[in-house]
Amino acid sequence: MIINSYRFVLPALGLCLTAAASMAESVSRESLAHAEMLRAQAMAGSNAMAIVTSLTTEVGPRLAGSEAEGRARIWAVNTLAAKGFTNIRNEPFAMNAWERHEEGAEILAPYPQPLAVTALGGSVPTNKAGLGAEVALFETLEDLKRAPEGSLSGRIAYVGHAMQRTQDGSSYGYFNEARTAGASIAAGKGAVGYLIRSVGTDSHRFPHTGSLRYKEGIPRIPALALSNPDADQIERIAAEGKTLSVRITVDSSEVPAAQSGNVVAEVVGREAPEEIVIIGAHLDSWDLGTGAIDDGAGVGITMAALELIKNAGLAPRRTIRLVLWGAEEVGLLGANAYRDRHEAQLERHVIGSESDFGGGRVWKVTADSQTEAGDQLFAEIARLLAPIGIAPGSDDQPGGGPDLYPLIAAGVPTLRLHQDGRDYFDLHHTADDTVDKLDAASLDQNVAAFAVFAWLVADSDVSFRSAAE
Amino acid sequence: MIINSYRFVLPALGLCLTAAASMAESVSRESLAHAEMLRAQAMAGSNAMAIVTSLTTEVGPRLAGSEAEGRARIWAVNTLAAKGFTNIRNEPFAMNAWERHEEGAEILAPYPQPLAVTALGGSVPTNKAGLGAEVALFETLEDLKRAPEGSLSGRIAYVGHAMQRTQDGSSYGYFNEARTAGASIAAGKGAVGYLIRSVGTDSHRFPHTGSLRYKEGIPRIPALALSNPDADQIERIAAEGKTLSVRITVDSSEVPAAQSGNVVAEVVGREAPEEIVIIGAHLDSWDLGTGAIDDGAGVGITMAALELIKNAGLAPRRTIRLVLWGAEEVGLLGANAYRDRHEAQLERHVIGSESDFGGGRVWKVTADSQTEAGDQLFAEIARLLAPIGIAPGSDDQPGGGPDLYPLIAAGVPTLRLHQDGRDYFDLHHTADDTVDKLDAASLDQNVAAFAVFAWLVADSDVSFRSAAE
Repeated sequence: MIINSYRFVLPALGLCLTAAASMAESVSRESLAHAEMLRAQAMAGSNAMAIVTSLTTEVGPRLAGSEAEGRARIWAVNTLAAKGFTNIRNEPFAMNAWERHEEGAEILAPYPQPLAVTALGGSVPTNKAGLGAEVALFETLEDLKRAPEGSLSGRIAYVGHAMQRTQDGSSYGYFNEARTAGASIAAGKGAVGYLIRSVGTDSHRFPHTGSLRYKEGIPRIPALALSNPDADQIERIAAEGKTLSVRITVDSSEVPAAQSGNVVAEVVGREAPEEIVIIGAHLDSWDLGTGAIDDGAGVGITMAALELIKNAGLAPRRTIRLVLWGAEEVGLLGANAYRDRHEAQLERHVIGSESDFGGGRVWKVTADSQTEAGDQLFAEIARLLAPIGIAPGSDDQPGGGPDLYPLIAAGVPTLRLHQDGRDYFDLHHTADDTVDKLDAASLDQNVAAFAVFAWLVADSDVSFRSAAE
Repeated sequence: MIINSYRFVLPALGLCLTAAASMAESVSRESLAHAEMLRAQAMAGSNAMAIVTSLTTEVGPRLAGSEAEGRARIWAVNTLAAKGFTNIRNEPFAMNAWERHEEGAEILAPYPQPLAVTALGGSVPTNKAGLGAEVALFETLEDLKRAPEGSLSGRIAYVGHAMQRTQDGSSYGYFNEARTAGASIAAGKGAVGYLIRSVGTDSHRFPHTGSLRYKEGIPRIPALALSNPDADQIERIAAEGKTLSVRITVDSSEVPAAQSGNVVAEVVGREAPEEIVIIGAHLDSWDLGTGAIDDGAGVGITMAALELIKNAGLAPRRTIRLVLWGAEEVGLLGANAYRDRHEAQLERHVIGSESDFGGGRVWKVTADSQTEAGDQLFAEIARLLAPIGIAPGSDDQPGGGPDLYPLIAAGVPTLRLHQDGRDYFDLHHTADDTVDKLDAASLDQNVAAFAVFAWLVADSDVSFRSAAE
């Protein structure tokens, strides 16, 4: 592509000249006018809230690989068809699913009382009578890692590791390791059970679930999360210096040949339909809530953005593809299946962005453009997003949503619309993730951002990839 | 009593003269100085938070008539003894207790999914398989009452009846009837099960429990409350016009010869020990949470107030009696037992006040004084409470806390420290009623108010009762 190699042809020209010269090339006046119209329409009210309300009411919880996730795909196909999109399809894949049946915990001594807990996704069951044992407490995962070999023999390990709220959700990656990796670390030192303080920022009696990953060659032990008030209770009792013992109970099972799938729909490009701009969200949710913020909001936002473009009668130069990923929560299974199925076309995936951080407003936009033309188009997108409160930023690493990680590894550039996530981890992976927590006007602002971005990139011939690729 | 008949002897004198003349009589300068000192000490930090933390940690949930409520009485006696109070005792009584074992609900059609529910206190069980039936929806209890005879045959009745938040909690009395009386109203029209929107003001997936009362001669049907988001879900589905069916499951049982008790402690009066000023709170809680706002806060506030008076080395003229009532939640059983046991001494119960509205700040004080001297002493109390943000008010009817109702009926006057309850019904009777929701400084303000009030009345010889009694 001409503009793609531009930066290498004319490296000696200053940035101002480069920017001025190419502005008209990266995006037409008409295209910009359409983007402004889409933004105004979204801000005046989109269908995002109606979509997420429909999904969370008519399907509700939709755990990866479950019959309910299958109903969500039927809901998606029917909803997309009713809206008149093109190339609607389910791209199925097989998976090993996990099912929660029962769970519980209680303090046995010194102060008998029930505890609010939930099994972590993937946890093995206890036997029916549960598992009662003394608890060994650790303030952080690091402390658990430093515990001597064999020191937890016959005990239940507990890790406190309290997460604080952040706007960008950046604390999650760090504290989340207690959930994903802790059980095997504890089991490696002899523990027979594993408890964590929920990876969450609320102080309600909602435990936060989420996947764990057992390490090969280490005994698999049952693993549960306590709600934050219950974790406080455990730590308060331990601080008295008394021996604390707890009984945990988990009934769960695996379904080895379960089905999942990615649901896809498109607005087909008028000139280069084989060039793809990806937007989307994940369709599965955890089983405790109805998955409104994680990730019904993303489904509503991205579907409403595509609907807005379609209903305006606009045909972009390239194809805009909506992907509603399956089985994200249990390890990006839908994202990997998409990458495998579409491997040959990935070099013509222009850019991707996923909405998977709740319903808060977008406050920052970043992109991992590797080209001058990409930078210039990004500057145009940022200019149109500024009036709705979004500032351009720069990121150390590519992002755009977890389901894009396999595509990023395959070289697909991403754009990320950073949402305000200060409250996100109050609800994330809890029974309290329901649609009453969403604000329609905030969703509309997200729709505006997705519509502007997807339209401008799809209606251009700009590449964000370096010529080397 | 002299001052008590004063108003009848000198009715022609103006209020100003009356007030001026009796000011010195109703309360001494020294007594006022002590009250100011108690107020300052409480505001600087009381033991209220430590007490409620201890109760909710070391006992936790303590349902009326349960073994756990028995442990709460042991905790109370030990805690009161450690603080050095006098005449510490448990006044036991027998009761018919109710136990919750299991509960659940799910939508069967049109959109299968689980619902967050809790059985109402006293609900009969379903059979093990649960009870699946079509749901008949009513927006209000009044609508249910107007349903034709037999019209609910074989169906589960649902009542929406959404409560709004109020500062004084006044909406509770009205909306609460859906919980207490609705099951028998529905059963009288043929319903086989009863569901309500929780009597609560939050939008979290915490259903609110609480007692129901079955009417004699009408079939007892299982009764449960939905969390507010689940009630929204039910109503959203019903609004689509589709037939809604739900399965409810309750396992519960009764314990006919259970034990409860009131725990009592005193600071004994130096001149008139047989004259009693009652303060207190109820010791039992619902079983879902740890009973921090209902009513651990009241236990902490009133015990800390009495502790402050005792630790200051002050001996009031009359006795201040702390009563920690048992089995309040299931029908004021402890309050009735107290009235029966102390019937002969009730005429020497000078005044009473209970703290049973959470941990919010006091914003108003009222009393049902029937005497000029009582009015004047009340004015002095109000004057000392004004600097901590409390204004005097007037009430249409006597109050002072639910456990005082039997005493009010027996002629005992009450004083009420009105707390700000805007958030109270977010947590009331839910699993989320835990100690992290309380604010120590707000509790201290309550302690200051109780200490000032109890001290000033106990150190006086003022009666609040009319001479006719």
